[in-house]
Amino acid sequence: MNRNRRSNLMESLCAALLALALMCGTLPAAAGADEGMWTFDNPPLKQLKERYGFTPTQEWLDHVRLASVRLNDGGSGSFVSANGLVLTNHHVAFGQLQKVSTPEKDYATHGFHAKTQAEELRCPDLELDVLQSMENITARVAGSAREGLSGQEALKARKAETAKIEKESKETTGLESEVVTLYHGGEYWLYRYKRYTDVRLVFAPEQQIAYFGGDPDNFTFPRYDLDFAFFRVYENGKPVESRHFLKWSAQGAAAGELVFISGHPGTTNRLHTLAQLEVQRDHFYPMLLKIFQRRVATLRELSARGPEQARQAANLIFGYENAIKAFTGEYQGLRNPEVMNKKREEEAAFRKRVADNAEWQQRFGDAWEIIARAAKNRAEGLRYQHYRRVRGSRLVPLALAIVQHAAETKKPDGERLDGYHDAQLESLRFQLFSPAPVYADLEEVMVREALAESAETLGADDPYVKAMLGGRAPEEVAREAVRGTKLGDPAVRRQLVEGGEAALAASNDPMIVLARKLDPFTRQTTRWMEENVESLEAVAGEKIGQALFAVYGKSHYPDATFTLRLAFGAVKGYPMNGTIAPPKTTLYGLYDRAHSFDFEPPFQLPERYRNGRDKLDLSTPVNFVSTGDITGGNSGSPVINRNAELVGLIFDGNIESLVGSFVFNEENNRAVAVHSAVILEVLRKLYDAAPLADEIAGASAR
Amino acid sequence: MNRNRRSNLMESLCAALLALALMCGTLPAAAGADEGMWTFDNPPLKQLKERYGFTPTQEWLDHVRLASVRLNDGGSGSFVSANGLVLTNHHVAFGQLQKVSTPEKDYATHGFHAKTQAEELRCPDLELDVLQSMENITARVAGSAREGLSGQEALKARKAETAKIEKESKETTGLESEVVTLYHGGEYWLYRYKRYTDVRLVFAPEQQIAYFGGDPDNFTFPRYDLDFAFFRVYENGKPVESRHFLKWSAQGAAAGELVFISGHPGTTNRLHTLAQLEVQRDHFYPMLLKIFQRRVATLRELSARGPEQARQAANLIFGYENAIKAFTGEYQGLRNPEVMNKKREEEAAFRKRVADNAEWQQRFGDAWEIIARAAKNRAEGLRYQHYRRVRGSRLVPLALAIVQHAAETKKPDGERLDGYHDAQLESLRFQLFSPAPVYADLEEVMVREALAESAETLGADDPYVKAMLGGRAPEEVAREAVRGTKLGDPAVRRQLVEGGEAALAASNDPMIVLARKLDPFTRQTTRWMEENVESLEAVAGEKIGQALFAVYGKSHYPDATFTLRLAFGAVKGYPMNGTIAPPKTTLYGLYDRAHSFDFEPPFQLPERYRNGRDKLDLSTPVNFVSTGDITGGNSGSPVINRNAELVGLIFDGNIESLVGSFVFNEENNRAVAVHSAVILEVLRKLYDAAPLADEIAGASAR
Repeated sequence: MNRNRRSNLMESLCAALLALALMCGTLPAAAGADEGMWTFDNPPLKQLKERYGFTPTQEWLDHVRLASVRLNDGGSGSFVSANGLVLTNHHVAFGQLQKVSTPEKDYATHGFHAKTQAEELRCPDLELDVLQSMENITARVAGSAREGLSGQEALKARKAETAKIEKESKETTGLESEVVTLYHGGEYWLYRYKRYTDVRLVFAPEQQIAYFGGDPDNFTFPRYDLDFAFFRVYENGKPVESRHFLKWSAQGAAAGELVFISGHPGTTNRLHTLAQLEVQRDHFYPMLLKIFQRRVATLRELSARGPEQARQAANLIFGYENAIKAFTGEYQGLRNPEVMNKKREEEAAFRKRVADNAEWQQRFGDAWEIIARAAKNRAEGLRYQHYRRVRGSRLVPLALAIVQHAAETKKPDGERLDGYHDAQLESLRFQLFSPAPVYADLEEVMVREALAESAETLGADDPYVKAMLGGRAPEEVAREAVRGTKLGDPAVRRQLVEGGEAALAASNDPMIVLARKLDPFTRQTTRWMEENVESLEAVAGEKIGQALFAVYGKSHYPDATFTLRLAFGAVKGYPMNGTIAPPKTTLYGLYDRAHSFDFEPPFQLPERYRNGRDKLDLSTPVNFVSTGDITGGNSGSPVINRNAELVGLIFDGNIESLVGSFVFNEENNRAVAVHSAVILEVLRKLYDAAPLADEIAGASAR
Repeated sequence: MNRNRRSNLMESLCAALLALALMCGTLPAAAGADEGMWTFDNPPLKQLKERYGFTPTQEWLDHVRLASVRLNDGGSGSFVSANGLVLTNHHVAFGQLQKVSTPEKDYATHGFHAKTQAEELRCPDLELDVLQSMENITARVAGSAREGLSGQEALKARKAETAKIEKESKETTGLESEVVTLYHGGEYWLYRYKRYTDVRLVFAPEQQIAYFGGDPDNFTFPRYDLDFAFFRVYENGKPVESRHFLKWSAQGAAAGELVFISGHPGTTNRLHTLAQLEVQRDHFYPMLLKIFQRRVATLRELSARGPEQARQAANLIFGYENAIKAFTGEYQGLRNPEVMNKKREEEAAFRKRVADNAEWQQRFGDAWEIIARAAKNRAEGLRYQHYRRVRGSRLVPLALAIVQHAAETKKPDGERLDGYHDAQLESLRFQLFSPAPVYADLEEVMVREALAESAETLGADDPYVKAMLGGRAPEEVAREAVRGTKLGDPAVRRQLVEGGEAALAASNDPMIVLARKLDPFTRQTTRWMEENVESLEAVAGEKIGQALFAVYGKSHYPDATFTLRLAFGAVKGYPMNGTIAPPKTTLYGLYDRAHSFDFEPPFQLPERYRNGRDKLDLSTPVNFVSTGDITGGNSGSPVINRNAELVGLIFDGNIESLVGSFVFNEENNRAVAVHSAVILEVLRKLYDAAPLADEIAGASAR
């Protein structure tokens, strides 16, 4: 699936929206079945015992948590050796692979293999987090808004308190500190991460084998993808000692076996109210799909200009296509009357339980009406959120961040825009000063398209369109800004940031000029959404979260928030299109699918695989499925057995899982993983990478 | 799919109903696209020229027709050598394979291979027809019912005329002669067949490779089934000289290539009126599915008693499961609002065209109301048609035929029940005197179940139930009839038939006694259906058929009637469950699917395939799909290229094609075929059958 790419893409495209979209919700998900993305403080012990007769110890849970990593490009991973070796997906690594590539050395397409540690390649801007501790701070955050404050005042107070908590924590512990909203306001937690920024590329296979079957096979199964890559985490110039790493199981998991998935699901909306789902269905998905489809067409045009343009556009095309496929599945889910009826029934049952108790009705009863109002406003605000910005550009957001950084850092921490709080500045600068290359052709096309889309959608008289274009054509504005800017050079960006307001004021870099025009509109949109959506959702979301605990107790899990979660399930096939899908696939199937399409793209095989067939044991499992509950952001998550041994590597969900954004259906919702055995098989037999195979599996596991 | 098994099963279970169901209908199918099951007198020349730039000659059409055969067990086939060798499906041959098997030699399961002609095994009751000529006799049949006759009288007159035509033709030409109703009464044709009854088994592979994937994979694709078998046709103790045979193409058809399918589709209802479809949806399918499911459960119980019982029940279980899967798909199609809306719109457009022309409206305008009345009556009659008979037994219908034969053959030919006309007696006797074994355990269970079902459904006070059970338990009646009868011996049946009424009157064989009780009820039901359904449908169907020609001309094809048809299309994949299905599969995929289920049934491989893997070229295509328009009865049809060379062997449709009973959708409706290459590959490399491979492909095509 490459589902995490979705959250990855989303991060760059509409992070603000997503963050907001997560802030409230309502309905308890049924906690039966192999369902749930559980926080490590509240693992599903009851279900595990009842269904699988297994109870993980606290030591087991701590070990798995500390072996799990979050890649802030938008994915998950795990330590798989004592020397900082990290396993994740090729598609999670794809952005960094592209950033370290050149027109001459295209690692993203052809793969990369460091035969020695000296050859390992440092990634320009990859941050990697390990969750060290979790602290329940609900009382402190909830208490920060005094009785009697308006919704907007309460929201402001809560944001200020959050920034303060994060800053204090970072200063005290040196750890990255994030306040996390769970159960949509029912709980607030302080998560502390050890953050690594020296992450080096160790190994990646050819994209064509990592993403065999391309967009057609994406989000489907049976599947034959070797979607894996290895990084190594360094500190002070040396590989870190990763005491908590997952031992490699060379044989993997058998059909029916209990497995766990430890990773970072990005977004689910299972607790959304009906009103919110209707806005998603009627406004959010149609708008985003239209934007994405237009972008893919534009990028394909660019790619057709030549192989170098194609190389540069590859990651964005992948991201948009992946999002289109995922969003289409989710959208179809919301348009399915059965799904909506189920949601309607659940909500009615929940509201009835609340209404039947006078005290609950008094405290929580008005929450659904408030949320419905917020949803109505959101529908109105969406077009400004999406069209009063320069979507898909890399330089415009950098320029905007430079402009806003100067203005925001003058203010008290609690009053700043999100993203510019003291606790966030280190990470912001790491991204701002990234040495990753900027591609002028690509950049120009993306800026032009974003401006053209806004002009067409909002009309020439829209104040934003007027300000950004000043009556000129989008191509002209884009060309001038991209061709004239020096911001492609990270040193220039550093100079402007470190020079403070004066240096910035003196700059007439055309990209900075454009960002200055953009700045008031993003502030206006942010303020409008706070006033008309967020403040309502914050108040009502908290009520619904508390009602959830009052009515159902803490027997369920919160919606996904790109924080660490534990899912569980069994390796298991499922009913599919009239027959049954198997629990796993084998290398035989890889060759079958390639031959069955006569090697037509995207079903061609890398030369190594075409020529190396006879070296391989074709019965080696390639991919397998389990009932574990995942979503975008889980890409790269380890699949482990009861002994916390690594048996697989999540890289996708099946097409039937896309409706999982709203409702989990154990019958056919499946997580798709690379099998642990095939990684060893190809490392040893096709890639001449025995030392790497030995590092993860030991020399004996051949 | 084994779709023809459906019509095979249907023949034994509800032939009368199906025949009736075919008698009328209404709507013109769009003749664009690769759609249509075309009669050989009206091939789709326009479509072929426009879409594929190909025009078959009359010689081409005659050659293909004379190389095509109909197997009256319920399937299709083709001559593939000059020495009478016929290719069809293993599942079409399955019934005969079982009939020549013994507890010691289970050819149905383990396969059969005659290394010399002397070893070829004669089938007990297989009839094989080759269509020699087609004559349009619409004027004569339609003219047989004088103006002013009532519907019932007209039906009677038409049936008498039909019997007369068939008898005359048979006497004159010596050929089997059938009057065929096309376009639901718009045309009547006299089809004459050369019939062969000495058909011998030459080769069949193991059932497990012919039906790999079993019921789950049935009616799906991608697929990996070697569903083929060879017969040889004899006359006067020698193989026939089959001048018209299809040359074998060792390389098969490429993706995108034009192919044809020449075979005998059993039943489609594309021209049914909405009223008829609603009766099928609301009455026919729910009732049949319930009956079939109960039967499968019963037969599985019987199979569990031991391997010999399992062997005896295998063919019936396959037939019922196949029917359940096909009917479920068709039923879902009718329950799909989109399908019904499309039908509604088509019918409205057709009726408007008729209504807009005063003469047409006068001649045809009342047809839909009449059909609707007939449909309402059919809904009522269905339960008697299905529950006042002994469904699934072999001996009861034989006994009934003996009883009715004596009564009917005394009457003038035109007044007899269908099945007992002079032109039909030879075939009836061939079936009545078949030496195929009767299995007492199986027979007892089927009779018991049928009686029990009727008693439960109709109630103890129903006259039929009273007459058949006489107050006793179904098990008792079944046991007495089956254990006490001598009818299992074909010589006894012959004696009773040839002894005439006196011999029959003297018989107190308990199965004859039971059939005597059954006889009046089947006559009553037949009469009731003629009076209340058939006579209405015959009149109105003819009107609608004529309206069809008046409005649309003869630009389309008639619904399927188990007569020879030509379909055309391209080898082509299709969108499937979020991805695309390939145009073909390979032997790699066979091994993948077996391994991916850890060889669990029904995904186990015969030992020959487990051990023989290294002998095979795994890239050999196994199955492929094309857009050709087929349905049950087409099983065993040859797939040929422009040069009339055999490139494949139809054995199934995909799950998306089941709705094709009502509407053809070129996007994903696919015919599934065994590839010509894989048959040679396994014959030569796994079965030591080079002489057979040489006979079909020549010694050079290795």
